Order: sequence, then structure tokens, then C-alpha cells
Amino acid sequence: MVNNPYKTRVNNLCSWMADENIDAVVIEDSEGRRSANLAYLSGMPSDALLIIFKEGKSVLLPWDEILAGKMASAGEIIGYSEYERDPVKAVSGLCKDKLSAGRIELSSQTPHLLYIEISGGLPAFEIVCRTNGAAEKLLEMRAVKDETEIEIYREAGQMTNRMIDALCGGFKSGEIKTELDAALFIEAESRRLGAEGSSFETLAAGASRSWGIHAFPSYTAGSIGDTAVGSSGGLSIIDCGLKYKGYCTDITITVCRGTLSDKQERMVTLVQEAYDLASKAAESGISAAKLARKVDEHFAAGGYVMPHGLGHGVGLDVHESPGIKDKDIYDKPILPGMIFTIEPGLYDAKEGGTRLENDFLMTEGGAVPLTSSRILRLP
Amino acid sequence: MVNNPYKTRVNNLCSWMADENIDAVVIEDSEGRRSANLAYLSGMPSDALLIIFKEGKSVLLPWDEILAGKMASAGEIIGYSEYERDPVKAVSGLCKDKLSAGRIELSSQTPHLLYIEISGGLPAFEIVCRTNGAAEKLLEMRAVKDETEIEIYREAGQMTNRMIDALCGGFKSGEIKTELDAALFIEAESRRLGAEGSSFETLAAGASRSWGIHAFPSYTAGSIGDTAVGSSGGLSIIDCGLKYKGYCTDITITVCRGTLSDKQERMVTLVQEAYDLASKAAESGISAAKLARKVDEHFAAGGYVMPHGLGHGVGLDVHESPGIKDKDIYDKPILPGMIFTIEPGLYDAKEGGTRLENDFLMTEGGAVPLTSSRILRLP
Repeated sequence: MVNNPYKTRVNNLCSWMADENIDAVVIEDSEGRRSANLAYLSGMPSDALLIIFKEGKSVLLPWDEILAGKMASAGEIIGYSEYERDPVKAVSGLCKDKLSAGRIELSSQTPHLLYIEISGGLPAFEIVCRTNGAAEKLLEMRAVKDETEIEIYREAGQMTNRMIDALCGGFKSGEIKTELDAALFIEAESRRLGAEGSSFETLAAGASRSWGIHAFPSYTAGSIGDTAVGSSGGLSIIDCGLKYKGYCTDITITVCRGTLSDKQERMVTLVQEAYDLASKAAESGISAAKLARKVDEHFAAGGYVMPHGLGHGVGLDVHESPGIKDKDIYDKPILPGMIFTIEPGLYDAKEGGTRLENDFLMTEGGAVPLTSSRILRLP
Repeated sequence: MVNNPYKTRVNNLCSWMADENIDAVVIEDSEGRRSANLAYLSGMPSDALLIIFKEGKSVLLPWDEILAGKMASAGEIIGYSEYERDPVKAVSGLCKDKLSAGRIELSSQTPHLLYIEISGGLPAFEIVCRTNGAAEKLLEMRAVKDETEIEIYREAGQMTNRMIDALCGGFKSGEIKTELDAALFIEAESRRLGAEGSSFETLAAGASRSWGIHAFPSYTAGSIGDTAVGSSGGLSIIDCGLKYKGYCTDITITVCRGTLSDKQERMVTLVQEAYDLASKAAESGISAAKLARKVDEHFAAGGYVMPHGLGHGVGLDVHESPGIKDKDIYDKPILPGMIFTIEPGLYDAKEGGTRLENDFLMTEGGAVPLTSSRILRLP
């Protein structure tokens, strides 16, 4: 573990601020508007205002000072209540205190009325709110994980693998019979293993409804790991992950029950082939769009179309940069330090769906799997 | 059940729009920015753009058209992909299509950059984004539940009561030993009873950490329903609820284990008295601030201070209008049709905490409890 990664991250942001001629960046995480940039730069899990000043000085204003005392790293921690928990008063007060004039950048997601109020309270300053500004720079920084984050992901991956093994065991033993069983098993197992819990609401879809990419509702009291009605085989999907020290894993298991139809077998084979192909092709610096295209072409040759992207970055948010899709805007290199999913899937309204998803760390030597999800065959 | 409550709600909003000289109101619910106003006006649970035009015509643009076909009610449903799932293109295209000019209101939460883009795309229109506008009007409308909503709440209350009984049974039998047991039991029981799941992440705090109003983490693998370390008695808190047809219930149980200390007994007695006092005093039209003050005065007479408000409205969001706190801004009548919590609580860093919370429907004859949570005594 590197000492205080937060300080390094703040300093990196400050170099960018100097280039952009920005004197302060305001980051806010609140109930209606979440931003993992807060946790990334300060370790505070949520509910605080953070201001980074150009010389690397940071001021954190948490709702919960006790929690901040235990978890946060910042140059200065001031009770938010000193500014009546009002972002306008806090930004205005602190910027006037630390600067006489300058450019203050707000997140591109800042509400219009808040922008107007903050601008009104700081007439001597220029208030910047733009696309591709500080918030997007932070997303770009977060895409390449640092040593601290990679260490967390190695542990999170091992935890996730124990959860996957236990889950597959539950399917084999017959302990897990319903979507609800699967979802609760994952939540309980994640917490027993020491994770904060699941990283998103588990998507558990039995054979009758695995045709949906994202099942709605996410899980029901219905069967899973079952055969489809009037069929001797069935495909079930479990898409889940856990959160450890703030970081999300994201994996998908397909459970194949009984004797699959020819079409189901074909889909499962194509997905496994696409997965193997993508993991092997994921060399350091490969274009995300090109990697996705290889899979799309493989499916096209088999007569199928994948209705979603090949993968996405994971981190403090379950969906982060880099996006891995066969579109021009994703024609960017997957760099060493990036952690991302590879998750090919095929879906059929009658036969059901199949998806295989694992998390990978890009290294100089290519993509290394952190998790070991699989296509599980059951008699 | 009244036929199509959505149409009635849209018409009510349109009357207000006529008074305010607004030609169209734009409502958006997306991953980063949730708004239950969407579900309230259209039945669509999430992820769509909704535009209400002044004559009562509504256009819904869902991300998931199949789901909208099953769940939504709107004058017109158009695939969002027809506008490339871009709110700027959709608002601009539809407003130009249906109106030649006029005033279009966006939510007070609209990001600054989105406001600028929409304004730029509609030069012939006035774009309104204000505090106390349409979004706040809808919150006010939602505070008084209609017949459809009250019917849903009667069912949700009965479901919640079955969950409470099962939970108390689990504590009595010893089946529930840890905070994790309690949280998973609530999730499973809610779904088994036919609810969509829990209405928020269960807060389960055993005797060693029930001193926190809102426990962090919300639950752990630690004990619950236990005695505090080095004590013959303990106070545990379980704050939970379920979601049924989109609507949230919210209740809190205190579990008293063993022989309580004098101070713990005093706190439990004061909370029960405050609860009884508030439920009895909650007459139709009473000021929310005055109701809260009665409880604060009761606690003050006993030498205690409650560190949170007395209650809040519940609905499509778990926290809604009316707020019930002893502050001037809450000096507003609690009207028939409002559904709200009464939840007095006291907390002590050493002795732990106790809270009792149920949901009530205000009627002409006074507040009627919809749920039957309680202070549970265990040997």
C-alpha cells in the first residue's frame, strides 16, 4: 500500500488545474447527486463538499464529522454545519477566505439554480461549469487505477471468487432454487466475506425470463437454475458483484440446466468462444472499439447480434471509463492499470439468454483476469 | 380503484400550468437524477422523459418501450431512441412539433449545461427553471394521496404488518441473531409477501451501536437483539420498510433484551409516551410544527432531547412532504389524505438508542395507523 494515495491524486489534479488556469475545483456528493470523485480524492465515502485549491490544499466539509474523522484524508476538515450545510455559503465563504479572485470550477452536473446562486455569491470570481472539465478529468484519472486501488482489487477479486464458488455450490447442491435465494445468498456471502455488500442490486433471471439483458424486476420469488417451460433445458443468468473498500466487482454466471436445445447450445458456445477470443486479444494498448469489434464479428459470423457493449471499466462506480463498445468514440487504448469487464452475451425471446462476465486488469503483458466466473452446467 | 389516476393527476397539474402561464412541463428520470414525479404522472417506474402539454396531452419517451407498454399511461408513447435518447433533441423536437412558442418549464434540479443546451435549441421559447415551480408543485400534490394511492397503502400496510410479525417472531425464536440475519430476513419476507423488496437499505443496529440515529454501515455481521457489553440489558433498533406498487412504508422496531438499566427503561418509557401522545394529538389539520413541538416538550420535561424530527411523509419516495419538525417552516396543516411517519427516538452514547415508528393516514377523524410496529421486550 502506498502512503496516502489521496494526496497524490489531489496533486495530480492540481497539475491539470495549473494547465487549465483553474484556482479551485468544487466537488459535491449529496443524496440527490452522487459523485465518487469525492471518495477518490478524500476517502470520504459520501455526503460532503470538497474544495481543492490550486496549491494542493484541500478542504472537506462533511455532513458527518465523526465519520470523516475516521475515514477521510484532507488538508482541512471543517464541519459543514459551520456553513449551515449550505453549498452556496460554503463555496462562497471558503473561496473568499483563501483567494482574492480567480476561476472556480463546478461539476458539469451542477444544477442551473445552484450555478446561478454560487455565481451571485462570488462576483469577483469567474465560475466555470463546462463539459470536459474537472469532473471528466477525474473520470479519466480514475480509469487508470493506482497501486492502492489495484491492491484493493486483488483482494476484492479473491473475495468475489469465493462468492462465485459458494454460489455455484449452492446451485449444485440444490440449496438455491429461486431468484430470491440467489440474490440473498450473494448479499449474505459478500458481507460474510468482509465486503460492504453487493455492488449493485443482483440481477437474477431464471430460464423463463433470461431473455432480458437487465431483468425487471431485478429478482423475483420465481425459479432459477431451472428448465424453461415445455423444454428439457434452460438458461439462467446471475449478474452480480460485491463492494470492497468502496470498489465494485461485476460478474455474470450462466447456469445451464438439463439438455439444452441446439440453439441454446449454439448460443452458449458462441458466448464462450467470444469470451476466450476477447480475453486473449486484450493486449496492452489495444483500442477498446477494436476489441469489441472482434467479438461483434465473431457473433455476426455465427448469425447472431449482441445487443449490448462488450464491457466497461469498474471502480468506485460499477460503470466507469473505459467503455468497450464497437463505436468510433471508443477508439481509445486500454492502458495498463485499467480494470474492466469482458461480458459477451446473447439473448433469444424463446430460448433465453446467456452471458459470461469477468473483471480484468490490463498489464504490460496483457489483460489478467481478477475474477473467475463461468458457464455452469448442471444435469 | 379509480380508473386511470394518472390522467387525473396530469389534469390537476395542467390547471396549475394554466394559472402559471406554462405551456409545457418537462419531467426526467435517469440514472444520475431520479424523480418520482415520472411514476406519479405516468406509472412508468423509471428511466424516461415525460412532457406534459397545457391541454392535458402527455408524451412519454421511455428507454425501455416494452416496459412502458406494460406499465405506463400517457397520451402518446414514443421510443426515446427516435431522438437518440438525447433529452435536448427530444424536448426541442417535441416542443417545436406541438407548440409554435411559449413557456417551457424544466425541473429546478436541471443541470446548468442541460438548461443552456435546451435553451439554445429552442430560441422561440422561454425556458423556465425556478425554485417553487412545477417540480415543487408536484411534491405538494403528492403529499395528499388520492384514492388509488390510499388503497395501495392499505395493502402495503398489511404486508408490512405481516413482515413485522414475522420479524418479531424471528427475534423471539432466536432465528435472528445478527444484523445481517435481520436485514436479509426483511428483504426475503418483503418479496415473499409480494412487495418489490425493501423500500430502503435496512438499518439494523445491535445494542453496541444503536446510539447512532442512522447506523453506518447500515448493517454488519454483528449481533442484534443482544445485551450491551458488560450490561444485563440492551437496546437494538431495526428501521426498515417495503415497497409495494412503487410506494414505500417505513417503520422502526426497538428490541429490548434482558433487564434494562434505569436509564434505558426511562428512555423506552419516554419514547412510548411520546409516540402515544403524538398519535392521539394528530388531528386533521393540526400544524406539523405544533405536533412535533408537543413531543419535544414531553422529552424536555423528562430531561431529554430528540436529535431528529418527529416524522415525514412517505410515498413514491421514502422521504416526502410533509416534514414534521418543530421549526417555523413546518407550520403547515397535516391534511386528510396525507400519509406520514411518527417516529420519536432517544439516543445515548453509552446506553444505546430506542425509536418507535409507524405510518399513519390522516383522515377527517384524525390519524389512523397503517402499520403496527412496536417496542419488543425479550427476556
